[in-house]
Order: sequence, then C-alpha cells, then structure tokens
Amino acid sequence: TGDQKEIDNSHSSLFKDFTLKRVLREDPRSKTISLHGSLTKGQHVSADAVVLLERKPFEVSTLEDSLHKTRTTETLSNDIYSTHDAFSPGLSPDLKATVICPATEKHISKYSEHEPFLVRETPDLYKNVTEPCMAQSKFSIQWVYNILEKKTESERIVVEDSDPDLGFVLLPDMKWDRKNIDQLYLVAIVHKHGIRSLRDLGSEHLPLLENIRTKGLAAIKKNFGVAAHQMRVCLHYQPSYYHLHVHFTNLRLDSPPGSDVLRAHLLDDVIDNIHTDPDFYQKATISYALRDGDELYKWYKNANYF
Amino acid sequence: TGDQKEIDNSHSSLFKDFTLKRVLREDPRSKTISLHGSLTKGQHVSADAVVLLERKPFEVSTLEDSLHKTRTTETLSNDIYSTHDAFSPGLSPDLKATVICPATEKHISKYSEHEPFLVRETPDLYKNVTEPCMAQSKFSIQWVYNILEKKTESERIVVEDSDPDLGFVLLPDMKWDRKNIDQLYLVAIVHKHGIRSLRDLGSEHLPLLENIRTKGLAAIKKNFGVAAHQMRVCLHYQPSYYHLHVHFTNLRLDSPPGSDVLRAHLLDDVIDNIHTDPDFYQKATISYALRDGDELYKWYKNANYF
Repeated sequence: TGDQKEIDNSHSSLFKDFTLKRVLREDPRSKTISLHGSLTKGQHVSADAVVLLERKPFEVSTLEDSLHKTRTTETLSNDIYSTHDAFSPGLSPDLKATVICPATEKHISKYSEHEPFLVRETPDLYKNVTEPCMAQSKFSIQWVYNILEKKTESERIVVEDSDPDLGFVLLPDMKWDRKNIDQLYLVAIVHKHGIRSLRDLGSEHLPLLENIRTKGLAAIKKNFGVAAHQMRVCLHYQPSYYHLHVHFTNLRLDSPPGSDVLRAHLLDDVIDNIHTDPDFYQKATISYALRDGDELYKWYKNANYF
Repeated sequence: TGDQKEIDNSHSSLFKDFTLKRVLREDPRSKTISLHGSLTKGQHVSADAVVLLERKPFEVSTLEDSLHKTRTTETLSNDIYSTHDAFSPGLSPDLKATVICPATEKHISKYSEHEPFLVRETPDLYKNVTEPCMAQSKFSIQWVYNILEKKTESERIVVEDSDPDLGFVLLPDMKWDRKNIDQLYLVAIVHKHGIRSLRDLGSEHLPLLENIRTKGLAAIKKNFGVAAHQMRVCLHYQPSYYHLHVHFTNLRLDSPPGSDVLRAHLLDDVIDNIHTDPDFYQKATISYALRDGDELYKWYKNANYF
C-alpha cells in the first residue's frame, strides 16, 4: 500500500467528470476506441472532447513480475488447453489516452467510423471522375518538396540518390518509431516532379522503379540489417498524396496498415506488368476503398457511381 | 476495499510461480505476446507451458464508469492536443490468457516468431518446387469434403448452390464470431474437386467464379445486410488448403489478416485477368511470404532459392 499511495499522489484524474456522448469507432483487433464526450480541461469546463484510448502493448521487462500478481479465472479447459480471464495488478500504465479538447465537428468526424465504399476504377472512371477530382483538390505537396530540397527533415534521410530523373530520398515513415526493426517502415520519395500515381507510370519509368528497388533495398540491408527477401515493397493506389513514392515495410508484420490488397501494389508486380505491357496502368481497372468523408468519395457520389 | 476483497476471493493466481524462459512472439499492434515458460497446473509441478496473452478490447458498457476512476499522467501537451499514460481501475478483466500446459516443442514452435521469406514464384518455380511439394504433402482435405457432403457443419451453411460445376457452399469462417457484422468473414467452397489454387484457373472457370461473386454477394446482402460495395472478395495464394475457396470479408476492417497484398488476390481482378488472357495464372509470376516453419519453405530452401 506504500507503493499505491505514491502512485496516487503523482497522478491526476483527467477523466473524473467525463461524460460519454457517443462511441465514434471501435477496433477490437488493435484494442482501440475513440469517444466523443465532454470533460474539464484547463479553463474549459465541460468542453467537447475527442478521446482516443489504446491498450498498451506488453512490456517484457516487467511482465514476469506482473504475472505473479495477476489474478485469473478459468473460462474454458480442455486437455492441455485452457483459457482465463485475468486482472493484471496495475503496476505500470495499461492505457494510452489521446485527448483533443475542445474538439470541433471536424475532429469528431475525423475519428468517427465512416462507411466504406468499394470503387472499381476503369480507365473511363479515372478520366472522368478521379482525375478531375485530383485537379480541383488543393492538397498542397509543398511539404514533399521541402523534404526533397532538404528544407525539412534532412537529418532523417537514410539514403539519397540525387539524380533528377532516377533519384529519390529514402526516409522513415512517420508511423515508425525508428527503434523496433520488426516494424520498420520507410518511404522512398522520387526527385522527379509530376508523376502523380501508378496511373502515370509507363515504360519510361522502368529505370526509376528499378533504381528505387535496388538502391532502396540495399540501403535497408546496410542500415537496418533487413534483407530484401524480408521486405514488402509497394505503391499505394489511391496514394495519400499525388507525388510518386514507394513504401518499404518489414515482412515480419503480417497485414500491417497499408498492405491491404485494396490499396497496395507490389513494386515487383508493377515493374513486371509494365514490362509485359507499357500501357498496363492506363488500361487497368483498379479497385480501392473510399470512406464517406473522403473528397474523392463525394465525386463518385456526384457521378452517381454509388 | 470491500470490493477488492470480494474479487480476490473469487479468483486464483495461475501464474504465481510462472518462470519466463523466452518471449516467442510479440505484436504491439494487436497487443498480444506469446511466452514460453513453466508453471504449476493440476498435478504438473513446474511443467513447460506456452502462455498467450492478449489485452481485452474496450467494453462500452463499463467504460464511462471506468474512466471516472482512471488515474492519468500527462505525457505531452500542445494546444488542444494532449497525450496521457493511464492506469485503469481494474473493475473488469483486462487480459485474456490462453495456456497450453504441458507444452511440447511443437506447441512452442507454433507460437514462435518465424523468419519470413519472400518467394517470387515464376511458372518454372511453380512447376519445379511448389507443385512437387503439393503432390508430396499429405495435407488431407477430407474435412472439406465432409462440409460439401453435409457430414459436418451443415447447420452453419448460409447458402448453397448444389450445381456440380458452378456450385459452392458459403459458410462463416472459423475466425468470425458470427455476431459482430463489422468483422463479417465468410468462405465459399466450390463443389468441384481438383481445382487446387489460382494457378489452376483458366477461362473454363469464369462461369464458376462469376457465379460465386454474384450469388455469394447476394446471399451476404440478404442474410447480413452488407452490400456488395462494402465487401472485400478475394482468393489466397498460397491458400491454406488446396481446394478452391473464396474469402468474403467486410471492408470496415482495414487490413485484416488475410488481406495482405502478398496473399490476397481480388476475385474481380482474377476474373478480369483471365478475360484478358486465359493463361494469365499459368504465366504469372506471383509473390508470397513463407515462414521458416512451413513445409513449402523447406522445399524452396532445398532448391537453393534462399
């Protein structure tokens, strides 16, 4: 109980007056939930808040000690197999909470469940819906140019090939903590401007794609010790921004975000397909998922696709 | 403290003498960990055990009350955004534990991290390595025939088309709890024997594939209310068994297991590819991941592929 008191004194209770209005989204696989509610934060008495809760991963250093103090209830038993519900002793934090307060409608929408819609984009749909949407949307890619021109993040660059046609910079993705090699996630961004996506690729880009594959994988092997046959190398369609980039993720992660067949296209397949038919990506019909909050979703909706 | 005592009396401490030998696998995304250690279970004093721990998803019904009692420490604060480490009050079980005790080497291997290896299977490699491995492996698919002949699981069938060439049964995948529609996962197994995988498909199978797409999606809409444009429909290569089957999963799940671009092939793409070239899947080079415990991995290793 001495420990207990110490912990109590060093903590506050941000959620003591939290009122739940709505569950925005739940993901039982990742053990996350996002909530809309109200709470008191600073001078904001009972302000709208978005609260994102996530269970913590297990910590190996304290796990054995923690297990000794864990209380268990058997829920099933069959031969050598059994399952148990358990209460861990609360020696270390078990949750990570992210709070946005005061929150606007936009924040609430961002963390809400959005209805998914499958688009099967033919070349005609690309020309008549997707391309006009891209042209009108004012998604700035200045931040990409800042990286390429070393105005920002230059200390994060793992390797660079400065050739204006074949070159690229390789750097860690924001989602990677840069520590856990099993979760390794890097992105190669091409120096050449104007290649918006997979749809723009043709045989003239084969040297660029092959250069990224060879030098990107070599740099990952050299810097992080992960071999080419342990990496998933792919492009996204739709991409999150319209300047060509390639994703490198560790194969040890099975089905990580961004590896979904409805978004990922293996660089090896892209190169093979263009070798087989230089116009492959201008002729192909490509499936992907949109959410009802996406700009492109609105264009497809207006075009009576759904 | 009255509550505390009551809880203590109704629980045991299966892990009180647990000794950790090795962490077999960790997945920070799903908040799971598998351990090899020893513990006392029944008459087995200090027997080898595999312990799988998984954090519980959040329970909406008790969440608000639980948050009121949660202690928090601010870890970051910037304008309206803040992050916090938190200790939940332990009102309900926070862990699910699965115990295999006594455990053999085979159990330990099954739950260990296995080195992943990328295979880029050319038609030659298929003929010289994959096909001989399939022929020699004695993976029985009698359980599939039992389903098709209604000897088992007939009460689980959602819909059946009994045509011997175009027919299939559609039933829930074992991984689905059959309750949470967001996690909907069904499998269509074809009646026709002898179609081992994607590699065997040609234009003669287009009516079968189109029939599965149309009738499978219609049955899912009718029985579960999920529309065709909200479903991910794909085949796996490598499949987990060599009798043609098609996976139907809800798009609401982003990147669920089995949707990885290194395993999933969209049924729409498969149909399109065979329309474009009837021999597409006999000519294609296909990438997939093997683990060092897999039978097929051993064949590729012996063929000096790695």
